Amino acid sequence: MKLLAATLRRIAPADERWRRRARARLEQLTMPRWALGRLLDLAVDLAGMTRSLRPPTRRRTVVVMAADHGVVAQGVSLYPQEVTPQMVRNFAAGGAGINALARAAGARVVVVDMGVRGDLGDLVRRRRILSRRRGPGTADIARGPAMSRAAAAGCLEAGIALAGRLAGRTDLFATGEMGIGNTTPSAAIVAAVTGAPVARVTGRGTGVGAAALRRKLAAVRRALRVNRPDGADGLDVLAKVGGFEIGGLAGLILGAAAHRRPVLLDGFIAGAAALIAARLSPAAAGYMIAAHRSAEPGHAAALAHLGLDPLLDLGLRLGEGTGAALAFPLVAAAARVMAEVRTFEEAAVSRAGKGS
Amino acid sequence: MKLLAATLRRIAPADERWRRRARARLEQLTMPRWALGRLLDLAVDLAGMTRSLRPPTRRRTVVVMAADHGVVAQGVSLYPQEVTPQMVRNFAAGGAGINALARAAGARVVVVDMGVRGDLGDLVRRRRILSRRRGPGTADIARGPAMSRAAAAGCLEAGIALAGRLAGRTDLFATGEMGIGNTTPSAAIVAAVTGAPVARVTGRGTGVGAAALRRKLAAVRRALRVNRPDGADGLDVLAKVGGFEIGGLAGLILGAAAHRRPVLLDGFIAGAAALIAARLSPAAAGYMIAAHRSAEPGHAAALAHLGLDPLLDLGLRLGEGTGAALAFPLVAAAARVMAEVRTFEEAAVSRAGKGS
Repeated sequence: MKLLAATLRRIAPADERWRRRARARLEQLTMPRWALGRLLDLAVDLAGMTRSLRPPTRRRTVVVMAADHGVVAQGVSLYPQEVTPQMVRNFAAGGAGINALARAAGARVVVVDMGVRGDLGDLVRRRRILSRRRGPGTADIARGPAMSRAAAAGCLEAGIALAGRLAGRTDLFATGEMGIGNTTPSAAIVAAVTGAPVARVTGRGTGVGAAALRRKLAAVRRALRVNRPDGADGLDVLAKVGGFEIGGLAGLILGAAAHRRPVLLDGFIAGAAALIAARLSPAAAGYMIAAHRSAEPGHAAALAHLGLDPLLDLGLRLGEGTGAALAFPLVAAAARVMAEVRTFEEAAVSRAGKGS
Repeated sequence: MKLLAATLRRIAPADERWRRRARARLEQLTMPRWALGRLLDLAVDLAGMTRSLRPPTRRRTVVVMAADHGVVAQGVSLYPQEVTPQMVRNFAAGGAGINALARAAGARVVVVDMGVRGDLGDLVRRRRILSRRRGPGTADIARGPAMSRAAAAGCLEAGIALAGRLAGRTDLFATGEMGIGNTTPSAAIVAAVTGAPVARVTGRGTGVGAAALRRKLAAVRRALRVNRPDGADGLDVLAKVGGFEIGGLAGLILGAAAHRRPVLLDGFIAGAAALIAARLSPAAAGYMIAAHRSAEPGHAAALAHLGLDPLLDLGLRLGEGTGAALAFPLVAAAARVMAEVRTFEEAAVSRAGKGS
């Protein structure tokens, strides 16, 4: 756990002096005061994260982590588990939603097998995906811990190491995931960390019916009762009710924060990973950008706990990193406004009157 | 008015067969049903507008129309009128918000003087802006009509002709504007066309204080009382309580619709122009995309009347086309998803179970 400990020590809060500098410049731009609203708030955030009034945004990487979940034995998902490796193959072939949206945003997609049930060795050998496998899926959280504490730390360190490897060619990170059943551990994580009621954070995922939703609620409640995760201990929550891809993403977020790279969070599963990252390092939350508000009800509870306000609200519930990829251009636009719009003085434009 | 009449005849509704074809393909994509929500709705809209499942989106043009308003004599604005030509110079020099956001979106900015108070002849001669001037600003709508009916038709035809000239190199249009005081005629238009109460559609614009807001409310009420615009007659509303840039934008929207090009509407002033366009041709509404929900309160009334649901909600209140430019990447992303994401069959991915 050396890499994890060293990374947690390395994460510094977003820089308040750079935030002030950004605010001072943005208030002088040739426009009514703060007339680009949320986009200017985002520019301030970027300045604090990157220590720059010209934050780079061109090199964009979506890391899509995939894994399977023992809890699908409880009948919580609409899709058969074989869809996880099938979708990884779809990612590798460039045919999924995240591929189209990453291409639209000029972003690279890095696919990581964190523990998919099924053989993806051919894709690894052909270098289409990376392997950081912890096994063929987690154990069933409704019956015991998802994984050992050592395995949870291993997931985090895999994500941290990957962020370190990609940081040199990445200005903006985005999180993506695939894993049939993974809204169930995510609901358990959000409930454990935020204290929100299970019924409020457990939703229909990919679209399950009423009976499966009842089974899912029961599975989340059992997972919390059987495992008693300590909501204040991110590693404990991850080990007991998490998932391999969720741990990998939490590590990726920590690594991005250590390298002072903004990281766009996709939806509900990303929110669960972000809660774990923020429990391990509260300062890491200063590098997170909530890309969108997912249709999954528990997402709002996760974002509220992280103090994040999402950029988009388009009723997305796909995951894969699609919502995060959609928000890349907004982040780039915010940076452009700060770097390129002229001030009243620079442009010789008259200021407002007293506003009586 | 020949060009106007011919254009109104030429506008055909968005194509329902292409919408159905789009829906059929999107329902087979390798994702849970309609899991990209609003983005898929947008893809259906694009198919209906362009008669294609591969709508082109690369060539993007923001048309920024500028003009002045006699009603500023009523003390309705925070900024002096000289800011209109100053900001046009800022647009021409590439230093304004719209320039930064258009560059971020890979879009071209076309600036048009529709009737600015001030001499911009040097910019016209250097081909930095186009001139379609109807005079040095409108008359004061609180005391009589903004312009003659012939001038209103002239504004519309200037916009239509410009759309025609740009359509050959434009896949997506966006509307932008600049004109100190132009939220006042826009409020009058929205009230006249939608029937919404003046108090609900009149806001603080660039940020006026309580006293100026009272003057603005009084000016809008007087404009409606003095002129009695016929809310069912778009040309009458434009002539009596409109503006030169608002007429130009309404024409641009009609021209875009006639050429079957999607047109992204920016904020409140664009909404007023769109209401006039839709009154002249209800089918034109089928080519409009509401880019964002402005912080200006009357915008919601305009969008509701047009049946449009905005893509972004970022508290923007700048105008210039900034919100529309921010939404270009979302439109491009929707088109990409429709064109590039594989179906379950194409990707050999298993479908969902019964969802019990």
